[in-house]
Amino acid sequence: MRNFTVIFLPANSKISVPCSKTLLQAARECKLAVDAHCGGRGLCGGCAVRIVEPKDPPLLDEDRCYLSREQLKEGFRLACRHKVDRDLTVRLPRAEEIPSAKLSILELESSEIKPQGAPRKILFTPPRSSLRELNIHLEKALLEVLPPGRPPVLPLEIISRFSGLLGSGQYPVTLIAEEDRLIGVEPGDTSDRILGAAVDIGTTTIALYLCDLESGRMLAASAMTNSQSSYGADVMSRIGFSLENPEGLSILSRTVRRDLKGLAEEACLRVSASPELIYRWVLVGNTTMQHLFLGIDPSPLGRSPYLPLVNSAVRFSPGELGLPSSPFASGVFLPTVAGHVGADTVAVALAARLDQARKLTLAIDLGTNGEIVLAQGGRMLCCSTAAGPAFEGARIQMGMRAETGAVDRFRINIKGEVELHVIGEDVRPRGICGSGLVEIAAELLRWGVIDRSGRILPPEELAGNTALILSRRIKPGEFGQYSFMVSEGSDEAVPVILTQRDIRELQLAVGAISSGIKVLLKLAGFSAEDIETVLMTGAFGHYLDPSCAVAAGIIRGVNLDRIRSIGNAAGLGARDALISAEEMEKAIEIASRMEFVELATNPHWQEEFTESMFFPEPERPVR
Amino acid sequence: MRNFTVIFLPANSKISVPCSKTLLQAARECKLAVDAHCGGRGLCGGCAVRIVEPKDPPLLDEDRCYLSREQLKEGFRLACRHKVDRDLTVRLPRAEEIPSAKLSILELESSEIKPQGAPRKILFTPPRSSLRELNIHLEKALLEVLPPGRPPVLPLEIISRFSGLLGSGQYPVTLIAEEDRLIGVEPGDTSDRILGAAVDIGTTTIALYLCDLESGRMLAASAMTNSQSSYGADVMSRIGFSLENPEGLSILSRTVRRDLKGLAEEACLRVSASPELIYRWVLVGNTTMQHLFLGIDPSPLGRSPYLPLVNSAVRFSPGELGLPSSPFASGVFLPTVAGHVGADTVAVALAARLDQARKLTLAIDLGTNGEIVLAQGGRMLCCSTAAGPAFEGARIQMGMRAETGAVDRFRINIKGEVELHVIGEDVRPRGICGSGLVEIAAELLRWGVIDRSGRILPPEELAGNTALILSRRIKPGEFGQYSFMVSEGSDEAVPVILTQRDIRELQLAVGAISSGIKVLLKLAGFSAEDIETVLMTGAFGHYLDPSCAVAAGIIRGVNLDRIRSIGNAAGLGARDALISAEEMEKAIEIASRMEFVELATNPHWQEEFTESMFFPEPERPVR
Repeated sequence: MRNFTVIFLPANSKISVPCSKTLLQAARECKLAVDAHCGGRGLCGGCAVRIVEPKDPPLLDEDRCYLSREQLKEGFRLACRHKVDRDLTVRLPRAEEIPSAKLSILELESSEIKPQGAPRKILFTPPRSSLRELNIHLEKALLEVLPPGRPPVLPLEIISRFSGLLGSGQYPVTLIAEEDRLIGVEPGDTSDRILGAAVDIGTTTIALYLCDLESGRMLAASAMTNSQSSYGADVMSRIGFSLENPEGLSILSRTVRRDLKGLAEEACLRVSASPELIYRWVLVGNTTMQHLFLGIDPSPLGRSPYLPLVNSAVRFSPGELGLPSSPFASGVFLPTVAGHVGADTVAVALAARLDQARKLTLAIDLGTNGEIVLAQGGRMLCCSTAAGPAFEGARIQMGMRAETGAVDRFRINIKGEVELHVIGEDVRPRGICGSGLVEIAAELLRWGVIDRSGRILPPEELAGNTALILSRRIKPGEFGQYSFMVSEGSDEAVPVILTQRDIRELQLAVGAISSGIKVLLKLAGFSAEDIETVLMTGAFGHYLDPSCAVAAGIIRGVNLDRIRSIGNAAGLGARDALISAEEMEKAIEIASRMEFVELATNPHWQEEFTESMFFPEPERPVR
Repeated sequence: MRNFTVIFLPANSKISVPCSKTLLQAARECKLAVDAHCGGRGLCGGCAVRIVEPKDPPLLDEDRCYLSREQLKEGFRLACRHKVDRDLTVRLPRAEEIPSAKLSILELESSEIKPQGAPRKILFTPPRSSLRELNIHLEKALLEVLPPGRPPVLPLEIISRFSGLLGSGQYPVTLIAEEDRLIGVEPGDTSDRILGAAVDIGTTTIALYLCDLESGRMLAASAMTNSQSSYGADVMSRIGFSLENPEGLSILSRTVRRDLKGLAEEACLRVSASPELIYRWVLVGNTTMQHLFLGIDPSPLGRSPYLPLVNSAVRFSPGELGLPSSPFASGVFLPTVAGHVGADTVAVALAARLDQARKLTLAIDLGTNGEIVLAQGGRMLCCSTAAGPAFEGARIQMGMRAETGAVDRFRINIKGEVELHVIGEDVRPRGICGSGLVEIAAELLRWGVIDRSGRILPPEELAGNTALILSRRIKPGEFGQYSFMVSEGSDEAVPVILTQRDIRELQLAVGAISSGIKVLLKLAGFSAEDIETVLMTGAFGHYLDPSCAVAAGIIRGVNLDRIRSIGNAAGLGARDALISAEEMEKAIEIASRMEFVELATNPHWQEEFTESMFFPEPERPVR
């Protein structure tokens, strides 16, 4: 089979591939990230790339379906549909413009958790003169490093390393102990550093927190887009990819493990520490991320009743999975609760102390999925809603992640003028991210541009002083529906448009979460007014203005002053379990105590859902 | 370099080796056991083999030094000295005549130890119809197999195997748990068998006991000559071998591990069980055997102050060391006390309950080394004596192990006639084993053929009725000394001779043990009369007639009825620690509590030793 060469701009990566491969596959082989929400099945249009050379590439039905006439004219095509049947030069529209390091990392709140159960180190410098009496010194050192009690059973592996090091004259050595066991020995004096990594594997973003296990201090954080995104934007399309490709599961496993490797190396580099000084990994993530990371078949998660193969906490050897670590490191993936309530939710509950909540507390983790926990007096009810895609920019015509060029804040002032904020310095808007979407909807509702049913009113139906100005932004779209122009185009930028269909997508997401909350409240015998605290967490939840969350109806019936954002609580919980064995125990207990509520089979849910699709009565602006 | 072919009879093993190799090396490569007490340095004569073809092989000084004129005429030569410089046919004199299975295995006394802490198994047969709900079934099964309490942290390795087995439709599977951990999963129903192996690695003989861990019952035993014997008869020559050869340590490690593999496979074969059903190994042996098995440099054990690198119990993975086992098996080498007081002595103390001895108890383990433990009221004093070589047949002119052809019992009746017992059916005597040596000495002392100084009297000095008959057996030897003819030669057999030098060797061994006992007694503030019980154990100790042990002066000042033999107590202790976690803990505690007495540096010892070289006053026979 003939091979052709593809050059990817702006990275200028060159690759030679057989003509059976698609552009998306070629980009993946170059380790270049291309969005493919649908997993490369021609169903989302996310993987559009610009074919620069040769001009006028062939045009497929799928291209026409997802791309505008302007885009087609400029050479944009779907990377998943086009095979490399000649030499090509291709420009990737965004992947390369956003280095992973620039991705926002949510700072962890400072912890009140006392570090506990960390590995201990002791420097062992045998007197050079008395090599013969090494074992006496070794036993003395062991007595120091191990708690008093019965003599230890030493692992042969460590004795061999130890005698090997001493035999070759490598002094000093550092011994490492955990609880009452000697777990390692390494050359040189490494006694001042005992590192651990807490990781939150999100469907979209992976965040790693490098901690000092002795002090519990966070030393560095790093984050990146989950490279599995190239194989699908949401958990379902990744499960699909692993089902449809014989090597699918192993590709996805390797991909995320490689991401973790990169993040750990980056974080270590920043504090000038060798990754070999990482002795413990604690991971959280949703159940699909857990299965994929561990290399366990996720297919049961893809079909009702969505049962995971493993709910338990899982111990693994980081080195064997390719994570940079000490050879003596251990790793734990925290337990999950159900197919769609993962270890990240358990970590949120741990960090927010939901198991100890005396007053009624609601925690909402808004990421690609939306998980909800209602806690009081030791009882914890939880459920999961497929809220995420819209909030993460998927299925929204001009949706995108919270990256450079995304509209993330939106206000309409008293004059009817639009004030918007775009991520990045001095950049033109090029799409709408999740928080932007909610803010736009909340404002349009407030100013009467959309009604409670979500319908964009025709310009002539708009009322009030601002109507004239705003009505200019309402444009007729397909099927007799209207669109709202969020930002006008210019020579350098396309206009950013919010379509009627986008609002419908948002309504589905809002309805899912809002109805989930209602079902949990009903089951626990409470109403929204009883909620003392609402905690918003997750990449998206953290950035969302609580007032917009209320205005858009995500949270209903709760006073605004009871809502607060708690940052990346999943990462915080992972960090707590990393630095404290007690917290780890508690996480395991929380997972076993959480009561999972399956919404799909809940008799109230469908009813609540339909009702929650309506936006709440807006608080009209003072005119 | 030219290669030549050697055929070894009677096995008919053929091998082609370069002419730089010795016959001993060629035999080793064929995995044929040839005695080489000195480690193949031409210093013992143990490796004599008969070169059948071509006739009249070259004769070296070392051959003349160690072999009789008859032997030389018959083609016997030292295998360690003769290089393979032509095609050869060689008969191995004994190694092949004694299949390992025929080696005597000391039966373990039935145990009162309650099996405890054994791995548990549960059969897991998921309903075929509900593969989707596998995890529910798995979690149910886990609840059955694990004790109640907090939910488990599952090892990834086992989850992967489990899902792999179920994914490929292999039902049922068997889960294995230990304490509160799931340790394994295997295909098929193996729930009726949970095996373990207890091993006593002696310098000379290795014994393996295959046990059912659930019932504690011993299913099979197997024993063989330690194949390391080809590299030296005693611990010092093996330490020497490991020092002098760059690959020495690894050769010795591999050799003993291969022995254990063979023994386990043999024992499993006998009970029709797969060695993969062995989940636990517990090993004992002297400190050198421990170092060599574990692959740890034994050189510090070869020079004063004889400090081992590791005294602690050592945990190892049996599979990694080549021992046939379940992939989920664990292994422990019990702790040692000092350079020459090993895990075998700890196991003896465990089996004999020396830690709980209320009355003064003396345990003597007579193997290649002699270890002594004096116990009372929780205190345990121990020492080691280099007693063994003579008792194992080494350094005795016609010494041999307790194998076919060895004189092991010896009496002189009232008529002055010799009554002897030879191991094997209808065989001619061809040498003297340890117990034979002691019995002969005891009888000769009783009948006045030797005096208390150990001197063989000239025929003319013998007194009494039997003198005439016995005096015929006294022959003049070298340096004006006399020898005693134990059995007369015939056409088919050489005469078996006990030389004056042999008696001196015995005196050294007897003196070493006897003085060791005295030193321990003195340190504990007792005298021999205070001893309530003497326990004799070890391959040799078990077979030795207590009355001869007293007559030869090994045990002095103790009434005969207080002496009893307890079989292979080291093996028994290993078995106890194998089937009961409590006993394992106790063994570790015993090792840490034992007080080691270094004889060489003890001020009383030299004095006691010299005195103990004299045989005790004999109990004269009634004439």
